[in-house]
Amino acid sequence: MKSLLQWRSNLALAGFACLVFGSHALAASDPLASWNEGANKQAIIEFVTRTTDESSPDYVAPADRIATFDNDGTLWVEHPMYAQLAFALDRVKEMAPQHPEWKTTQPFKAVLEDDMKTLAASGEKGLLQLVMATHAGMSTAEFEAEVKDWFATAKHPRFKRAYTEVTYEPMVELLEYLRANDFKTFIVSGGGIEFMRPITQGAYGIPPEQVIGSSIKTKFEMKDGKPVLMRQPEINFIDDKTGKPVGINMYIGRRPIAAFGNSNGDLQMLQWTAAGDGARFMALVFHDDAKREYAYGPADGLPDSPFGTFSQSTMDEAKKSGWHVISMKNDWARIFTFDE
Amino acid sequence: MKSLLQWRSNLALAGFACLVFGSHALAASDPLASWNEGANKQAIIEFVTRTTDESSPDYVAPADRIATFDNDGTLWVEHPMYAQLAFALDRVKEMAPQHPEWKTTQPFKAVLEDDMKTLAASGEKGLLQLVMATHAGMSTAEFEAEVKDWFATAKHPRFKRAYTEVTYEPMVELLEYLRANDFKTFIVSGGGIEFMRPITQGAYGIPPEQVIGSSIKTKFEMKDGKPVLMRQPEINFIDDKTGKPVGINMYIGRRPIAAFGNSNGDLQMLQWTAAGDGARFMALVFHDDAKREYAYGPADGLPDSPFGTFSQSTMDEAKKSGWHVISMKNDWARIFTFDE
Repeated sequence: MKSLLQWRSNLALAGFACLVFGSHALAASDPLASWNEGANKQAIIEFVTRTTDESSPDYVAPADRIATFDNDGTLWVEHPMYAQLAFALDRVKEMAPQHPEWKTTQPFKAVLEDDMKTLAASGEKGLLQLVMATHAGMSTAEFEAEVKDWFATAKHPRFKRAYTEVTYEPMVELLEYLRANDFKTFIVSGGGIEFMRPITQGAYGIPPEQVIGSSIKTKFEMKDGKPVLMRQPEINFIDDKTGKPVGINMYIGRRPIAAFGNSNGDLQMLQWTAAGDGARFMALVFHDDAKREYAYGPADGLPDSPFGTFSQSTMDEAKKSGWHVISMKNDWARIFTFDE
Repeated sequence: MKSLLQWRSNLALAGFACLVFGSHALAASDPLASWNEGANKQAIIEFVTRTTDESSPDYVAPADRIATFDNDGTLWVEHPMYAQLAFALDRVKEMAPQHPEWKTTQPFKAVLEDDMKTLAASGEKGLLQLVMATHAGMSTAEFEAEVKDWFATAKHPRFKRAYTEVTYEPMVELLEYLRANDFKTFIVSGGGIEFMRPITQGAYGIPPEQVIGSSIKTKFEMKDGKPVLMRQPEINFIDDKTGKPVGINMYIGRRPIAAFGNSNGDLQMLQWTAAGDGARFMALVFHDDAKREYAYGPADGLPDSPFGTFSQSTMDEAKKSGWHVISMKNDWARIFTFDE
């Protein structure tokens, strides 16, 4: 009898330990240590507490704890340009010897001459040409290798750090805090899905199957008796603006209860998230810290930006709807791990 | 000192218990109880053992333990017709009062008159018309409700059971066995993604975000100030044949190490899975049991079938490649939970 009791007691302890170590709840340190104390940090903790407390009227079963995050400008730096655009420009320069015609053809000529003004003037059409020239025509495995090679050496022009280091530490903490509370975290980005997937596990703890993004079509082919997926110069899906709820439905098949963005491109994702029943958390990161990162809007009189535009109308809708606007300047004690 | 030692010892026990209870390794009963002893059952257990044993040269980290399953004919019955086709025919009959023109228009006339011969003669074009008429034009939420309503009452014509009961118990056990060993199980089906998602958690323990299937386009709209996704009469993606590796890459972003199918439509998924490095497991369920289920090929001289065609060339490739062919007749002791 004693040994049975001992067994039961050990089992109970084991169960307790599973809970504790499983949820990191015992962590002595603050899981959101890089956040300043304030209404936004408080709101996050309060939301997680009430959706995970079984006795709360706002309790949400673990399976439904879906949280979606934009990437550029929400999880990492998107200025002076998207990392993926920097990748495309670098690739054009690398590929140029095989394409002598680029010396006299726009928008490639502008890239090779570092003529950003002419490049910008080429608009969406020019951008699409750059993307197709650098992102299509190879197998998925070849493209993955190119992306990994680039991330291994490329540096952010201002911070002189690898792109995987210019991630926002408060957001990485938030991702971990949510996962420790049995949330499933997804990236829902306008960026290329196969550009992000090679680095999201390392940078954010998010596996490839939880990354949603824009994509080009791929085609199954047999090459030397081996199957390959060849990347086609044709858009498959644009995961931006109204495309974000479409992508969420297509990939996840259920509605998030929490969504985080930072620009007009995230508006519909937040509307879609907000429209569900029960407890919800919608937030926008606002770049108002030119000293430690960047400041752009044009909301609240900050300068306009071609990357991550945050209009006054989006700010107004956020405030009207009770969405949380996270001020990088005021809410974040530390932005990067390399900050002092 | 004693209390510290006690604490360490309890911790070790807790860690052990986490491992044990986490992996269900202690289950006293056979996790594949509905499988007959034999080479295929043995091969499954051997594969799972060597990919999960850290000291094995074939060890695979949990994150890479991706297993993909076709649905129709692999996880549940696909005869005398796909469940989704039965759903479409039932919906046509239900919607007919609002469509008086269907009385005189094919392929709807054939459906309303139960004229399967004329319906079959309408071919893929006719099928597409039926799908668009019954699967598009409503919001995703409305469609989900229609699917759930149908599953709540529809019965399989031969087994007189709900469609969620004509799932193959040996495959459900296999799914559970793989998940208990930290595999992530995905459905990769030619069937409609939003037709399957409402029932996959209950039927197979597979959440919606791990279901990949064919889809039509959806469009984000505001209706009475509320965002909805409207289902458009336009194909988005066909997740069959060469589309399966494309879908796997698009949704999962990594290659499965195990894949299960039952027809020509699964050939490329198995080729794609087989082409990866390290331990692999490819299998095809072969319907050779007319008594307990159905028998069709045309492989091995069984009758041909419009649903789940399994050609001799597919059988030959399976045997040549060392893929496992699962005989329903010989490998499965029990097919359905309602079998004696």
